[in-house]
Amino acid sequence: MTAHADLSPTLQLAIDLIRRPSVTPVDADCQNIMMQRLGDAGFKLEPMRIEDVDNFWASHGKQDGPVLCFAGHTDVVPTGPVQAWQLDPFNAVIDEHGMLCGRGAADMKGSLAAMVVAAERFVADYPDHKGSLTFLITSDEEGPAHHGTKAVVERLKARQERLDWCIVGEPSSTTLVGDVVKNGRRGSLGAKLTVRGKQGHVAYPHLAKNPIHLAAPALAELAAEHWDHGNDFFPPTSFQISNLNSGTGATNVIPGDLEAVFNFRFSTESTVEGLQQRVAAILDKHQLDWHIDWALSGLPFLTEPGALLDAVSSSIKDVTGRETKASTSGGTSDGRFIATMGTQVVELGPVNATIHQVNERVLAADLNVLTEIYYKTLIKLLA
Amino acid sequence: MTAHADLSPTLQLAIDLIRRPSVTPVDADCQNIMMQRLGDAGFKLEPMRIEDVDNFWASHGKQDGPVLCFAGHTDVVPTGPVQAWQLDPFNAVIDEHGMLCGRGAADMKGSLAAMVVAAERFVADYPDHKGSLTFLITSDEEGPAHHGTKAVVERLKARQERLDWCIVGEPSSTTLVGDVVKNGRRGSLGAKLTVRGKQGHVAYPHLAKNPIHLAAPALAELAAEHWDHGNDFFPPTSFQISNLNSGTGATNVIPGDLEAVFNFRFSTESTVEGLQQRVAAILDKHQLDWHIDWALSGLPFLTEPGALLDAVSSSIKDVTGRETKASTSGGTSDGRFIATMGTQVVELGPVNATIHQVNERVLAADLNVLTEIYYKTLIKLLA
Ligand SMILES: [Zn+2]
Ligand SMILES: [Zn+2]
Repeated sequence: MTAHADLSPTLQLAIDLIRRPSVTPVDADCQNIMMQRLGDAGFKLEPMRIEDVDNFWASHGKQDGPVLCFAGHTDVVPTGPVQAWQLDPFNAVIDEHGMLCGRGAADMKGSLAAMVVAAERFVADYPDHKGSLTFLITSDEEGPAHHGTKAVVERLKARQERLDWCIVGEPSSTTLVGDVVKNGRRGSLGAKLTVRGKQGHVAYPHLAKNPIHLAAPALAELAAEHWDHGNDFFPPTSFQISNLNSGTGATNVIPGDLEAVFNFRFSTESTVEGLQQRVAAILDKHQLDWHIDWALSGLPFLTEPGALLDAVSSSIKDVTGRETKASTSGGTSDGRFIATMGTQVVELGPVNATIHQVNERVLAADLNVLTEIYYKTLIKLLA
Repeated sequence: MTAHADLSPTLQLAIDLIRRPSVTPVDADCQNIMMQRLGDAGFKLEPMRIEDVDNFWASHGKQDGPVLCFAGHTDVVPTGPVQAWQLDPFNAVIDEHGMLCGRGAADMKGSLAAMVVAAERFVADYPDHKGSLTFLITSDEEGPAHHGTKAVVERLKARQERLDWCIVGEPSSTTLVGDVVKNGRRGSLGAKLTVRGKQGHVAYPHLAKNPIHLAAPALAELAAEHWDHGNDFFPPTSFQISNLNSGTGATNVIPGDLEAVFNFRFSTESTVEGLQQRVAAILDKHQLDWHIDWALSGLPFLTEPGALLDAVSSSIKDVTGRETKASTSGGTSDGRFIATMGTQVVELGPVNATIHQVNERVLAADLNVLTEIYYKTLIKLLA
């Protein structure tokens, strides 16, 4: 184990952040630490507490010229069973394999530390840089996310802020830092389906309508459907039923209704309306008495090759020698909100193998590499 | 409303029984009242408390000759919401339409009262009757039924008791008393099916196996299957899924397994082994990783036309002028346990339209008619 003072500025800051148990939506002063550092470096600070969520916006530079934003979240998911952790999840120890261990090490306090240190170096080295460098930080990315990035973006739009490029610190890498960046995300469309039958006794099925029997062929057809073939940037749209419930608990009662919760992760080849119509057509074909409550969590977004993706890819190549792969796979991120500003959005962060799990960890050295990549990217875009 | 003392002995006894809230498996002294009456009439009494369940056996007559048994239960199902009842469910009031109202009026304290009064009259009128007249009464028919009739039958078998004919007081009639008797019941075979998949995140379906998607086509096929065509005595075997559950509650998690509870009501055209094999074949055809816990609640039984059915039918005809219909439809009853003694079993009781519901009730006059039918049947078989 290395003494704190011998560590790089990025690791020192990452450790300070991890030691604050900022479980969603609690911030535990993480943002104050970041703002203190950025303020000292000459950034203009704008805390934005919205409802019960801490967010902040910070900027350095000129009114005109390109705007680059570092975006991220200080909140972390719960630890799960603490006894399952080999090391205290909020002690941020570097183990004998050189892994920085703790909740948020990978998602995404390591990235936040790298962003702050890269920004400090950049504004020190290039005090009169082009355009402006900004930060958009929330403490509600892992939670309901209503009063986090989404709400901040609404305020920025309302006052006509422009945002050309955004680097989100989500852990995008799969085995080596920088091997993958995300240049988009699929859309996410949720639904709660209710199929109505008629309750009765299992001994008198002719007096009842069993919604399980009625719905099963329709669910089988929905599960087998090919929604689209994807495209060069997106895998095919996928459909998954996550929850299915019917029955009173009694073994001799035919239930009155069935409830299924499902989710589409959809490519730019499908639209919300198109998916909704196709689901309705299948349910109607099976003559079901049905109702759906739809919930759109995010439209798909895509950053095609251009200035941002080029700068990020070539910085990764410069620092690590690696060819990065741009991918749109995986879950959603706050990138979906920022993309609605017309912004090019790329997610670049450390290896995501342990995120949201017990024993979350990241190779400590990777955070120093990440700091270099962020710094090089700033030079390429704003120097 | 009639004063208690003006009522027939059957109605007086029915009211006394209903006023004791003997919700399964509590007996609330109902059996003591019955035993007191039968003891006074010269019956030999044998209480059989088994575990926490009160049962009794009573007999009158000779060792040799035919044995006829009146069987029934003193327990009742819960009232449900008491405020939904027009009259107190345990007050046993006869309303302005001549209906005796209360929990157990139809299922089956009315029958018990009619049986006791018919037996009293019969042994008084025919003290030296043929064979013997017996009672097998339990207070756990509506509950788990492990320590009720089933356990009493085991004891009777162990000591080589013979039982030729049994009349179960279950409410068999549909619109007029005696219009239907049950001369058998379908079998009931329950099952809890588990289909195993592999848990995962909805954004990464290729790393998971969704048990809902895998099981849906198999459930659809099971629901559509024709198991047999029934026969002259039985309707076709029916299959119903009563409960279906899968999912963690989270909308972004693909569940690890699915559980379905289903039930067969099966005719004598199908066997337990045959049904089990056909279910297994369908699940295997869909290549599911599955497990089933089977629970046989009762084999089908059938009493073909013969001495008992003839005596019951002609007594109904004598008393009411009605042609009765012998049916095997509906739920299970304790008749299935008694039939395993090689006994001819017929269920005959009042109209079942309101059983297990709020405002359970029976036409008061029907209990007097039922008493006459039971009495005539005793004469035909034992006088
Ligand atoms: Zn994250
Ligand atoms: Zn009953």
